[in-house]
Amino acid sequence: MPRYRLLLEYDGGPFQGWQKQANGPSVQSAIENAVNAMLGEQATLVAAGRTDAGVHALAMTAHLDLQRDLVPERLRDGLNHHLRPAPVVVLQAARTDPQFHARFDCLGRSYLYRILNRRAPSVLEAGRAWHVALHLDAERMHAAGQALIGKHDFTSYRSSECQAASPDKTLDRLIVARAGEQLFVRVHARSFLHHQVRNIVGTLKLIGAGKKPVSFARDALEACDRAAAGPTAPPQGLYFVKADYPMTAPAV
Amino acid sequence: MPRYRLLLEYDGGPFQGWQKQANGPSVQSAIENAVNAMLGEQATLVAAGRTDAGVHALAMTAHLDLQRDLVPERLRDGLNHHLRPAPVVVLQAARTDPQFHARFDCLGRSYLYRILNRRAPSVLEAGRAWHVALHLDAERMHAAGQALIGKHDFTSYRSSECQAASPDKTLDRLIVARAGEQLFVRVHARSFLHHQVRNIVGTLKLIGAGKKPVSFARDALEACDRAAAGPTAPPQGLYFVKADYPMTAPAV
Repeated sequence: MPRYRLLLEYDGGPFQGWQKQANGPSVQSAIENAVNAMLGEQATLVAAGRTDAGVHALAMTAHLDLQRDLVPERLRDGLNHHLRPAPVVVLQAARTDPQFHARFDCLGRSYLYRILNRRAPSVLEAGRAWHVALHLDAERMHAAGQALIGKHDFTSYRSSECQAASPDKTLDRLIVARAGEQLFVRVHARSFLHHQVRNIVGTLKLIGAGKKPVSFARDALEACDRAAAGPTAPPQGLYFVKADYPMTAPAV
Repeated sequence: MPRYRLLLEYDGGPFQGWQKQANGPSVQSAIENAVNAMLGEQATLVAAGRTDAGVHALAMTAHLDLQRDLVPERLRDGLNHHLRPAPVVVLQAARTDPQFHARFDCLGRSYLYRILNRRAPSVLEAGRAWHVALHLDAERMHAAGQALIGKHDFTSYRSSECQAASPDKTLDRLIVARAGEQLFVRVHARSFLHHQVRNIVGTLKLIGAGKKPVSFARDALEACDRAAAGPTAPPQGLYFVKADYPMTAPAV
């Protein structure tokens, strides 16, 4: 069976998350249903990251196997036709090695978290950013976040529902920057724990607002206790930006 | 009666436009209703520009008179409370000279038009940009647009419903630039004719797609005939960016 690699953009707002669920619409089932509507095939999609309810993707990589040998552009356009009006689109499609695995071959994942930091509520960014009315000091947040870089036990930044075998993760990059009223938090790691990015952002927000000292992010990390860190930032500010693969995997 | 100046952001999507209408919700009536709900006063809002149905504003200036003498921040926050869930917010509020007039004192208006230029339909930019699947050459569009700079008879770029006494307008700036999949068209003039920006964008799009030569924008202008120019670009890509006032007017 030919294997295809897809690059996907989606608005997480109306979904229960990436993964197929009994209790509501998921991004995975939206695409699997489109495959079925287009080709009459029951395919299973595997993504680089299983984003939570409400979390968006700018470019999520996924793979699927089909009975049919299709021109990838036809697959892309056909799925986009059948996906409407669900807020999911196939940006690119390509044939790939049958050994390629979107989740297990992924070498790195990038996320972006957007904060709209102003007094007035969000209008044009509604559902696309976290609105924080209190002024946040981005440089202070950036400085605090640097303590999280490297390999650590991230128990304090991990959801109680996280199913990962180990709380150890290696955070490669964390950048907080302001552009006008917007704050951008960019992170990169091989992989993340459940809610790790949102828990980091929720913690840095307390530091940015001056409610906690710069050392709070490090102190929370060292406590290895979820209660020591800040609350979970809401999902609508989070974007899965990119999955990295070895150079040998066909580019999508 | 004290006069107040407001700076407003709105998503034009659900509105029939700025101006109060018999047949549907308007931005003006949303705010006037919020004033009434907050203060029990029947105020009339005057804006720098009366945007069309579906057109957004990043920062529209408007003025209104109230019986009451209010701390401007209280007016801002109170209106924002009463505006919910309408996608309109007051970014800033200030007391202003009773002679200040948001429309007649305005020295210049800036608009932005956003195009999402890629094969895949819009998801995260849905309702916020014009999706054009055909590749557009931004440099070609920019070059063509320069013929419109200066004082001209803009009959070819004017809606048949335009009520302006004269078709003569002076276009100060027109810049087309690409950033990844997005094209930005920025224009500035003292004032614009009805549909002028959208008709310019619709014309430049034909040039960018290679359907018309670069000279088409100028030829259309010189024809002084609406039928000589391109179609009207859709409203969801257009943003009122800013109104300029004399330095003596209090800053908002």
